[in-house]
Amino acid sequence: RSMATTARQSLKIGMLPADGIGREVLPAARAAILALGSSIPKTEFIDLAAGFEHFTRTGTALPDETVNILQEECDCAMFGAVSSPSRKVTGYSSPIVALRKKMDLYANIRPVTSVAAEPTGKPSVDLVVIRENTECLYVKQETQTVTENGKEARATRLITERASRRIGEMAFKTALSRPRKHVTIIHKSNVLSITDGLFRETVRAVPTLPGVDGRYDEVTIAEQLVDSAVYRLFREPHIYDVMVAPNLYGDILSDAAAALVGSLGLVPSINAGDSFVMGEPVHGSAPDIAGQDIANPLAAIRSAALMLRHLGYGNGADRIEKAVDQVIREGMVLTPDLGGKSKTSEVTQEVIKRI
Amino acid sequence: RSMATTARQSLKIGMLPADGIGREVLPAARAAILALGSSIPKTEFIDLAAGFEHFTRTGTALPDETVNILQEECDCAMFGAVSSPSRKVTGYSSPIVALRKKMDLYANIRPVTSVAAEPTGKPSVDLVVIRENTECLYVKQETQTVTENGKEARATRLITERASRRIGEMAFKTALSRPRKHVTIIHKSNVLSITDGLFRETVRAVPTLPGVDGRYDEVTIAEQLVDSAVYRLFREPHIYDVMVAPNLYGDILSDAAAALVGSLGLVPSINAGDSFVMGEPVHGSAPDIAGQDIANPLAAIRSAALMLRHLGYGNGADRIEKAVDQVIREGMVLTPDLGGKSKTSEVTQEVIKRI
Ligand SMILES: CC(C)[C@H](C(=O)O)[C@@H](O)C(=O)O
Ligand SMILES: CC(C)[C@H](C(=O)O)[C@@H](O)C(=O)O
Repeated sequence: RSMATTARQSLKIGMLPADGIGREVLPAARAAILALGSSIPKTEFIDLAAGFEHFTRTGTALPDETVNILQEECDCAMFGAVSSPSRKVTGYSSPIVALRKKMDLYANIRPVTSVAAEPTGKPSVDLVVIRENTECLYVKQETQTVTENGKEARATRLITERASRRIGEMAFKTALSRPRKHVTIIHKSNVLSITDGLFRETVRAVPTLPGVDGRYDEVTIAEQLVDSAVYRLFREPHIYDVMVAPNLYGDILSDAAAALVGSLGLVPSINAGDSFVMGEPVHGSAPDIAGQDIANPLAAIRSAALMLRHLGYGNGADRIEKAVDQVIREGMVLTPDLGGKSKTSEVTQEVIKRI
Repeated sequence: RSMATTARQSLKIGMLPADGIGREVLPAARAAILALGSSIPKTEFIDLAAGFEHFTRTGTALPDETVNILQEECDCAMFGAVSSPSRKVTGYSSPIVALRKKMDLYANIRPVTSVAAEPTGKPSVDLVVIRENTECLYVKQETQTVTENGKEARATRLITERASRRIGEMAFKTALSRPRKHVTIIHKSNVLSITDGLFRETVRAVPTLPGVDGRYDEVTIAEQLVDSAVYRLFREPHIYDVMVAPNLYGDILSDAAAALVGSLGLVPSINAGDSFVMGEPVHGSAPDIAGQDIANPLAAIRSAALMLRHLGYGNGADRIEKAVDQVIREGMVLTPDLGGKSKTSEVTQEVIKRI
């Protein structure tokens, strides 16, 4: 689903690099957007604070001001990556999880596609993970008590019909736009019969919703238990087209799928709601390589393309994506995660040249 | 940890084939145990009812009688596999999940090792997943309410210090018995800071428990977020030796690891408590191939070996495992999941001949 573009004179993009290599890949995304020139509206980038490092300096991982500016001034945003504390830190809570909820970015869309051409020319992995982005264990309702046997901690896993329905609709819409038009529902209802049962039944029922009028008749539906879905993803990735999953399973599945295409540094995503979209590379902040100018900028650049496409600028998105695909296929200028020797900045330059 | 064997005159083994190919692979496990002859105590097999098919006939997936006989008469047991209903079935609840809890089989131990010799002769995957087996989302405390926005379902995820400590101890003990002596703690404490925080801190603290007296000084400890653990498992499986995980992550990780060694049909497990052990192949009931005598019996046979080793019969276990490894390495008599053309019964015969 893309957001209407007609009246837009300019594009205000909130930039939240956050931590680690987030700060190195977001400038690459910005450069790629700028390279589109006048084929998209005039862009304005607004730098916004967020992240674990910001928390350690100020006591806040996601300042109210950041959220306000996103909500009131921005058309869209790009997020870098956030570091996780290695020990429990009182008062800290992940800003990306909070942002997804506060901006109601209910769909995390993660296309995973292998580029390197096989003999047949057919990519071996071509799927998209549609991950519910606001609930499941990510509601972060946790408590701890102390009993005579020691500590006991509980977390709530929330699955609602409303959120399952809208993520289901997103999955079916996405499937319609793809050649294979196939949806696989991921769940674990053999154990979680009520929560995952609700997810499964609600997604399955999307084609029968009032007003749908046969729109999804062409879409075929399958389902898989999450454990066996990961197993089959490794062994038969071609069976998947659109995978729709509750939040945590989607988190795991998208990393698993990324492993199949060579590097997490290639996999983009958008966090999409009905009135806002935020691009975000799937990789983390990678503290081990931060500051060395060797992080792969392609996931961030591709995330910018996905964001633009979602806003209705399909041509701009195509140009960025083709440039990225070319750079990967040529294989001359790549970062170390892909076996190359080039810098973040060099890879970015190669992409820009081809846009 | 193996259970004392000294006084045992005979070995009573409860056999719960349950559903689908469970009924075809459990006879193979039985035949392998019998082939050990007098090198283990006289065995007696007691056939016990359980499973989805039993539920559809009788309304009970796990009869009280089965649990009573296991608790009062058996030294150990073998479980086959259980089918999952394809729609919510009122009153049905997974018998394997119930058994693990009722028998307090708190550790699910799943070694995953590649056999096929590489040029160097070194197997590329050699790890063991130690999965907590009694809590996490598997407590199955689920509720559903109806609000003005539709249905809302909630599940409780329980993590206790007690269960985390005993699974942690199992992980460290297991690590000590392996050449690399390395434990990786799997969690998602960047989101679940209280529940997974408790798991992580409790497992980390095992080497400092009173009475441990430096026993685990040789064991090195690492940790990984579950999403990135799956990613790295696909790309660098050699970094793992012992992986210890809460229940659901362990479920997913062991399937992921199985994908790396060629087939789920190779991966065995035991469900172990302090006074009982139950062998169980990691694969499911595979209704699509049930009844054709083509299911791979090797996971079940290996599970029998693991069970015997846990009971203190290491020599018997070695003989079974060597026979299985030989059959795989020779590659002449294999079931279709491994690219072979042989029947379940033929593969079983090949193993038996080599025991
Ligand atoms: C950083 C973390 C909270 C996040 C998540 O679990 O959603 C990340 O793994 C992701 O996939 O975007
Ligand atoms: C059948 C199912 C309940 C079970 C589980 O989730 O534990 C299975 O997947 C397993 O791994 O043993």
